Amino acid sequence: MASSEDILLSAVLNLLSAFAFLVAFAIPTTQPIKQNVLLKMVSEGSKVPEPELIDHAGLDSAVYIRIYLLGACQLVWEIIRALRSNIQHCDKLSISNVPSGSPRFWAHLPSNAQMYRDLSILILTCPGILQLLQLISLILMQLVVYNANNLAKLVEKKKSYHNWLTYYQTKYERNPKIKPKTKTGFWGLWGETVDAIEYYTAEIEQLNKEETIERQKVMSDPKAIVPAAFVSFKSRWGAAVCAQTQQSSNPTIWLTQWAPEPRDVYWDNLSIPFVELNVRKLLMAAAFFLLTFFFMIPIAFVQSLASIDGIENKLPVLRPLIQMEVVKSFIQGVLPGIILKIFLILLPMILMAMSKIEGYTSLSSLDRRSATKYHFFILINVFLGSIITGAAFEQLQRFVEEPPSEIPKTVGVAIPLKATFFITYIMVDGWAGIAAEILRLVPLVMFHLKNTFLVKTDQDREQATDPGSLNFSVSEPRIQLYFLLGLVYSVVTPILLPFIIVFFAFSYMVFRHQIINVYDQKYESGASFWPDVHRRILVGLVISQLLLLGLLSTKSIARSTPVMIALPVLTIWFHIFCKGRYESAFIKFPLQDAMVKDTLERATEPTLNLKAYLKDAYVHPVFKGVELDRPTALDDEENNPLVATKRSRRSSKSQSEEGV
Amino acid sequence: MASSEDILLSAVLNLLSAFAFLVAFAIPTTQPIKQNVLLKMVSEGSKVPEPELIDHAGLDSAVYIRIYLLGACQLVWEIIRALRSNIQHCDKLSISNVPSGSPRFWAHLPSNAQMYRDLSILILTCPGILQLLQLISLILMQLVVYNANNLAKLVEKKKSYHNWLTYYQTKYERNPKIKPKTKTGFWGLWGETVDAIEYYTAEIEQLNKEETIERQKVMSDPKAIVPAAFVSFKSRWGAAVCAQTQQSSNPTIWLTQWAPEPRDVYWDNLSIPFVELNVRKLLMAAAFFLLTFFFMIPIAFVQSLASIDGIENKLPVLRPLIQMEVVKSFIQGVLPGIILKIFLILLPMILMAMSKIEGYTSLSSLDRRSATKYHFFILINVFLGSIITGAAFEQLQRFVEEPPSEIPKTVGVAIPLKATFFITYIMVDGWAGIAAEILRLVPLVMFHLKNTFLVKTDQDREQATDPGSLNFSVSEPRIQLYFLLGLVYSVVTPILLPFIIVFFAFSYMVFRHQIINVYDQKYESGASFWPDVHRRILVGLVISQLLLLGLLSTKSIARSTPVMIALPVLTIWFHIFCKGRYESAFIKFPLQDAMVKDTLERATEPTLNLKAYLKDAYVHPVFKGVELDRPTALDDEENNPLVATKRSRRSSKSQSEEGV
Repeated sequence: MASSEDILLSAVLNLLSAFAFLVAFAIPTTQPIKQNVLLKMVSEGSKVPEPELIDHAGLDSAVYIRIYLLGACQLVWEIIRALRSNIQHCDKLSISNVPSGSPRFWAHLPSNAQMYRDLSILILTCPGILQLLQLISLILMQLVVYNANNLAKLVEKKKSYHNWLTYYQTKYERNPKIKPKTKTGFWGLWGETVDAIEYYTAEIEQLNKEETIERQKVMSDPKAIVPAAFVSFKSRWGAAVCAQTQQSSNPTIWLTQWAPEPRDVYWDNLSIPFVELNVRKLLMAAAFFLLTFFFMIPIAFVQSLASIDGIENKLPVLRPLIQMEVVKSFIQGVLPGIILKIFLILLPMILMAMSKIEGYTSLSSLDRRSATKYHFFILINVFLGSIITGAAFEQLQRFVEEPPSEIPKTVGVAIPLKATFFITYIMVDGWAGIAAEILRLVPLVMFHLKNTFLVKTDQDREQATDPGSLNFSVSEPRIQLYFLLGLVYSVVTPILLPFIIVFFAFSYMVFRHQIINVYDQKYESGASFWPDVHRRILVGLVISQLLLLGLLSTKSIARSTPVMIALPVLTIWFHIFCKGRYESAFIKFPLQDAMVKDTLERATEPTLNLKAYLKDAYVHPVFKGVELDRPTALDDEENNPLVATKRSRRSSKSQSEEGV
Repeated sequence: MASSEDILLSAVLNLLSAFAFLVAFAIPTTQPIKQNVLLKMVSEGSKVPEPELIDHAGLDSAVYIRIYLLGACQLVWEIIRALRSNIQHCDKLSISNVPSGSPRFWAHLPSNAQMYRDLSILILTCPGILQLLQLISLILMQLVVYNANNLAKLVEKKKSYHNWLTYYQTKYERNPKIKPKTKTGFWGLWGETVDAIEYYTAEIEQLNKEETIERQKVMSDPKAIVPAAFVSFKSRWGAAVCAQTQQSSNPTIWLTQWAPEPRDVYWDNLSIPFVELNVRKLLMAAAFFLLTFFFMIPIAFVQSLASIDGIENKLPVLRPLIQMEVVKSFIQGVLPGIILKIFLILLPMILMAMSKIEGYTSLSSLDRRSATKYHFFILINVFLGSIITGAAFEQLQRFVEEPPSEIPKTVGVAIPLKATFFITYIMVDGWAGIAAEILRLVPLVMFHLKNTFLVKTDQDREQATDPGSLNFSVSEPRIQLYFLLGLVYSVVTPILLPFIIVFFAFSYMVFRHQIINVYDQKYESGASFWPDVHRRILVGLVISQLLLLGLLSTKSIARSTPVMIALPVLTIWFHIFCKGRYESAFIKFPLQDAMVKDTLERATEPTLNLKAYLKDAYVHPVFKGVELDRPTALDDEENNPLVATKRSRRSSKSQSEEGV
């Protein structure tokens, strides 16, 4: 165990290095206005008011950085409470306050995203073309979803060939003496050597033909129509009614829900039937359980393969190399750690893939779902795994075989002993991670790698320069870990709190800066993740209360236990209360508000052409920009929806046999 | 432990006595058509088809007796499965089949109750008069709820005085020589002696005046208006939209829900605000926890008071009586049991009172809620309490201090040993209880007691002859106990199954008979209890699987454990699946179905006057039949709802200050 001098030294070193990162970031920005970046970042909080921040970066980002502020203020409050005082300002930011801002959430959404969200719904597993008879007078237009996965592949391929063509044409223009050659095989590395420009021109022509055929096929083949549809309404009121009500007596068909914002749609998952969806969720739940508790088994197996003996046995060729002292010590000392680290880096991707299999239909819900999984993994393998040393499946065994009253005791007793470990963890993982984020070290390295090896044309360079975005599914669970550490240690070892406060305050500044100046958000979900954040904070609170209960019961003040049991009960009750009071703000759109907005819009913008506005919103990206052959929006101008629907499909897709 | 001969003898005796009950029931019914009651009861199943049964007795009753049929068939299937065979007919009645009948549920509801339920919604915590601007064109009429509790008391008192007046008038007519006298005190037992007829006539006149004043007060005092309203719609579609959507951005005001059927409304709970509702639920949850696990402590205390020494100490007067041998042995042997029995008889009433405090607004939901509580109590104190002997709080301690993996083992091992106990329990509690039900022993005794001591007039006699109704909150949890016993013992000790089957088959016949010929249901809820029944059956299934798991793990076939764990996981998944697929049939009214019904009704009954039909439905019982001064339904004929609302209230209630 490290002494307090060690920790102090480490803290000073870490703070200095983080500061050095910031200075390194400040130097390259030579514009006069940005000269004092550090000062600017600190003062930014007062410079950009929140409504402007929401307009600029979206509600998701604005709410996201509020989590950091909430964390910092919560912990400052904890410290001050420990010093028997009180504070007014931070109380305004306490847990119960933030969700009540929900009407403001709706009020300040960036207008585009908001209008799509207000007016459109997504209907899943609808058999055939839409027959929402009872709502038809309210509907502005309907858009069926096509399975355009093959088409998207072809378009992608054509784009890549176009890119190569541009590259060779530029090369030829610069040096007209040499006709550029290429090989017909993979990435031009092998195969027959041909004239590059001619080859790619021919290939693109061929792809054009294929694409036209595929496009025709998608539009005319009834099997290419996915049982899902985006429906836009004439008024917010109509959309709100349809999204909140059940249409058919079988709730698994005509599943109506608010459409995600157009950029937020995850097109691949729009066609999964209800039963399959349930089976997928069951399988993924089992897989996630195994992953969380038994991931160490395959890792240990790979690590054993990567040992000296393992490599010698499998690859005798490498034996002379391995016998070298340097290589040997590297393999023995670093390789197992690297294998584990690689797994942990891949983990969010694995979890995201699992969420995709579960069939969520928007990127935001995929992010939320992955965050839930990652949070549980961190809770078990980082928090509990560090306190009760041993692999997760050993913990699991312990949980099953130990009395429930013993577990909080075991864990509670171990907590004070692990304070120094977590201080180091906060500095290495938290502080250093944030410093790397402000410098954008990883993207920087990736950009230079790509620039050197992959970039051929300006278009490529543009793509390589990805400004990035908030990675909610990874960073939010990490915040929750710090919340949990703050709550657990606020009573036991309050010296941990300043370290977490520095993390939160630092993160707040850095992410605020990134959101304003760097990031380019992929979608806008209206802070739909907030109920998850709220729930996980309360889960952390309950865990900390149970552990405190366990710790106290060992300190022979067991008499206070019955009183202490009231704490988690009240916390859970508070959660249920908040769910009933505030959650609907995130999943429903009150009819009253919808009506008021409709009326306001009609008064202020009587000439707004909603149809033109919404026409292209929910078209598969692969159809965007292609004027001909784009799926026709089925609109309400033909009065009888069923006949009109059939007719319009017939005329545009020359297909009349299919019974609707 | 009883030997198998003992059990056989007991079974034969019990069956014979149950048969004797039936014969005793058959003899008094002397009408020729009912002569062979036993035969009639057996053949009734084929005589009354289900739709007719639903028309006659309501959907609640029809579904309720299907639980018994389901139980019997399930267990027959278990037995036959144990005999390695298969059966087709009973499979049709398996768990997954019944809820899928949901559209039929709606289709067959008795038409009156159904129309009220289809067209009306209840709005709770609405501040002031209704402002559902966005739905106003769909609304047929609105009815505010008045706090008429005082008025109801006065009306009740007047009714009682009327009754006395009739009694004395009849007495005087029969014997005109003696002018009947009464005393002015409580029940005419003490106080000044006056002429009875004159006294009651004067009192009734006085009460009439008071009632008029109170009625005026209720109608004009703004504080007498409860923040709740019943709203009826012109079409089912409008009602379905309003009931399923959120009206205001604050979900705790304008809480819209389907109105219970008029008879089903529990008027006292219509005015509880959201926060208070949550606090009440928390308090009742804590109280119920204490009641379930620690009820033995006050019982034991009372029992100790009722011991010889206790009585001698408290009431020395009784000492000579207690010294008698007969009294002494009675007190020692029977009194503690009687005290426990009295508590158990009072328990359903205690649980119902707790549910009322929780603030549910319909009798059916109160019944469902009480059933949930009673089921948990039986599970802990009868099922587990009989297997792990010891008081519930000792069990609780054991659950907390024993490893989770040990509990199924402990319980599982004890299960086979308790088979004979449960056989006796089934015969005493189940068989005898049903036999008493067919004879209606308890109501018979009550009727004769009332007839002797209380009945004065024909009206009194009519009230004392209560045909009774299904007591869902008590009998359903008992069925669940038998289900659980059947599931647990189907693998361990299948000899128990025939006893349970006899219970189910017997109950099915008896309750079917009672529903058709005797009971008078108090309300009709559209089988809204079915999801609870389904959930509790699956809870029983999971419990039986866990106990089997525990039992098997002790039999050194622990290798099968991981496979067995899949069973409860799959069961829980099945529950979640069913919830998603079928539950909405009980809480929502699909817009498509609503629209179809509306259209049908308009086609078949174009002249139906809905307003006249619904006018009196949701009036507080105390206002029913009183033509003057009844609360005015606020209807939509005045075009501007807000102004009209104010005006109509002003004119009828002479109150214009209150801001709406």
